[in-house]
Amino acid sequence: MRAEIVSVGTELLLGQIVDTNAAYLAKQLSELGITLHRRSTVGDNMDRLMLALNSAISSADVVLTIGGLGPTMDDITRDGLAAAFGDALQMDKAIADRLRAFFRLRGVPFTESNLRQAMVPVRGKALDNPHGTAPGLLFEAENGKIGIALPGPPNEFIPMVENHVIPYLKAKTGGVGVIKSLVLRVAGMGESLVEEKVKDLMLDANPSVAPYAKVGEVHLRVTAMADRAEQALALIEERAALVRARLGDAVYGTNEEALEHAVVALLARAGATVSTAESCTGGLLAGRITEVAGSSEIFPGGVVVYSNAAKTDLVGVPAELIERVGAVSPEVAQSLAEGVRKRFSSTYGIGITGIAGPGGGSAEKPVGLVYIAVADETGCQVEKANYIGSRAIVRLRAGQTALNMLRLKLLE
Amino acid sequence: MRAEIVSVGTELLLGQIVDTNAAYLAKQLSELGITLHRRSTVGDNMDRLMLALNSAISSADVVLTIGGLGPTMDDITRDGLAAAFGDALQMDKAIADRLRAFFRLRGVPFTESNLRQAMVPVRGKALDNPHGTAPGLLFEAENGKIGIALPGPPNEFIPMVENHVIPYLKAKTGGVGVIKSLVLRVAGMGESLVEEKVKDLMLDANPSVAPYAKVGEVHLRVTAMADRAEQALALIEERAALVRARLGDAVYGTNEEALEHAVVALLARAGATVSTAESCTGGLLAGRITEVAGSSEIFPGGVVVYSNAAKTDLVGVPAELIERVGAVSPEVAQSLAEGVRKRFSSTYGIGITGIAGPGGGSAEKPVGLVYIAVADETGCQVEKANYIGSRAIVRLRAGQTALNMLRLKLLE
Repeated sequence: MRAEIVSVGTELLLGQIVDTNAAYLAKQLSELGITLHRRSTVGDNMDRLMLALNSAISSADVVLTIGGLGPTMDDITRDGLAAAFGDALQMDKAIADRLRAFFRLRGVPFTESNLRQAMVPVRGKALDNPHGTAPGLLFEAENGKIGIALPGPPNEFIPMVENHVIPYLKAKTGGVGVIKSLVLRVAGMGESLVEEKVKDLMLDANPSVAPYAKVGEVHLRVTAMADRAEQALALIEERAALVRARLGDAVYGTNEEALEHAVVALLARAGATVSTAESCTGGLLAGRITEVAGSSEIFPGGVVVYSNAAKTDLVGVPAELIERVGAVSPEVAQSLAEGVRKRFSSTYGIGITGIAGPGGGSAEKPVGLVYIAVADETGCQVEKANYIGSRAIVRLRAGQTALNMLRLKLLE
Repeated sequence: MRAEIVSVGTELLLGQIVDTNAAYLAKQLSELGITLHRRSTVGDNMDRLMLALNSAISSADVVLTIGGLGPTMDDITRDGLAAAFGDALQMDKAIADRLRAFFRLRGVPFTESNLRQAMVPVRGKALDNPHGTAPGLLFEAENGKIGIALPGPPNEFIPMVENHVIPYLKAKTGGVGVIKSLVLRVAGMGESLVEEKVKDLMLDANPSVAPYAKVGEVHLRVTAMADRAEQALALIEERAALVRARLGDAVYGTNEEALEHAVVALLARAGATVSTAESCTGGLLAGRITEVAGSSEIFPGGVVVYSNAAKTDLVGVPAELIERVGAVSPEVAQSLAEGVRKRFSSTYGIGITGIAGPGGGSAEKPVGLVYIAVADETGCQVEKANYIGSRAIVRLRAGQTALNMLRLKLLE
């Protein structure tokens, strides 16, 4: 089966946004064994959209569009696909009712232009969109060609691909000839050291192993091709086991599982809890932990103590200590971790204090200097870090280090 | 002048990398006033590359390719462009010598296949690449059509665009004709209502106004073309003023300025401070506020109170109140906001409590139900929201609503 992707949006042609949706969809198609021969991008212009659609339909079995399904005049994909597939659009009353209810629930005035989003192809159907107002659309031409229209916002696009497009195409292709991959996520080890340790495992083409450096971690992508999914997965499993044997505890998870997921799972398994006292990370660490569904079991709460007074008032860091050694110091990190642990009666307490920048640095305490402490009933471990990068990077890396310290403690 | 971009690389069609080069180049072309009608992506396959190149050459004045210039068998762009432009390639001795010297310097064995990178068009020239081995190529057909081949690695690609492509195209276009744009960021008003209010301002092609729905906000992009930058900016300013007059306070900022930046700036101007008590957002709101450099002036701190005990212990929400009305209630949101304001002696206090999901919902209190309260010395405003979407979206939108409520209070 051959596919083409047509991305629609003037903002893409102006280079104002990067088309991550198309890359995501391309990856999903490749994993289904569907050959993508071309991707193209056109603006919100009907003539050029029609040229792209007609060209795509003439050479591919399935044409997937991204974007241009909203309620405004700019949103022309629905009409363009109907024309290219020689189909008509009719109003779906159930969708129209749902749109009205959606607006009522939000207390937002309903404008009639929203009803364009209830128009569905006569020879086709709508694809449910629980995350937005515009449903996706499926066109099925009499000659067997397929058109699939997907919304542009990634939070609507990705679930629709996962819940509708992949199952539909899998059924169409019978699920043969596949590329599978697995990402092994590595924390606490730099890219060059990771590569050094698995260099010889990276020489084969199938399965292949490729490293990608991320903020505060490294991803190793193991990819295999085979006739059947099980064969590809077996190749991957074998190679992944070799990689894990080399890297040990540094491999903390796979695929989309971020470090906070691994930590929350370990805490839950241990029946333990953690609380956080953040200065320079300003709530980001708590935000990451609570992004994990079910984290309320292991996280009673935390404090963001930006001012010195708050450090003293909320978690009992002695004002005298701050006065003597400064807020950015191993002693204050430890006092934050121990104080918040006591405050929330949690098994572990994390304290972070540092200079995220761009201002506030000095020769003695430069931007990027961060102290991270993890306390438990047996004592407190404090690490000193000198991160390089923007304010956002320093904050991200500090949270990453804290989570990895706690993870290694939980693995002991 | 019309352009098309053709990206070449199977890894792009497999979705293994995101084509940030194409977005970057598109943005540069738009700033030169060169109209990009289409972008396309093909794999390392000569037939499909030729189809894409011939189609691009037939409709555009300049065709820019990205990738496929290396020394391996996969690298077919050079040959493809020569065929499409009816040109021949000949060896450039100076480039061949430089390649040999490059390998000698690095102590890497020189293989003859590297000499492919010294082949340049007879009617054209090479573009210097100080960051890699493959030079770029310029093709100039007798009919005036232009082909520009650029290397794929971003650290080679970007300097070549800046140092060769932009000056060359600027000279070709006479340096006249530019496209500029401005994004107006709108909070607290849905996309369709925004469009309703500015519909008539969206009818013109120059300046154009186009809406984009984001999570919890809408962006209106105002774009203008003119001979000179000042003229384009004047067109934008005029149109932006009309849009602002229609939307009033709902326009909170421009371009990359996120809502937290607007709020931090307003607080600083007012000499005011804010503290946060977060349940379902779990520190994300504090994290957003502290992402802004200099936020320590207006943010003493906050608490993340996930457990009921923490709500009572840290900010004094009466246990009896939680027992009676439940943690997810307008009363508890208000108590959080008032309690944290008192705790940190801040001008404003924000309280957020809700059900982010995916679990924890009920018929009476469904997933997505969130109460948001903003307290100051005169009282407390509480809003009820029913957000639709994933856990991450519910949390993002709740933070967005809180920031916008505080912003509007600061504008009063």
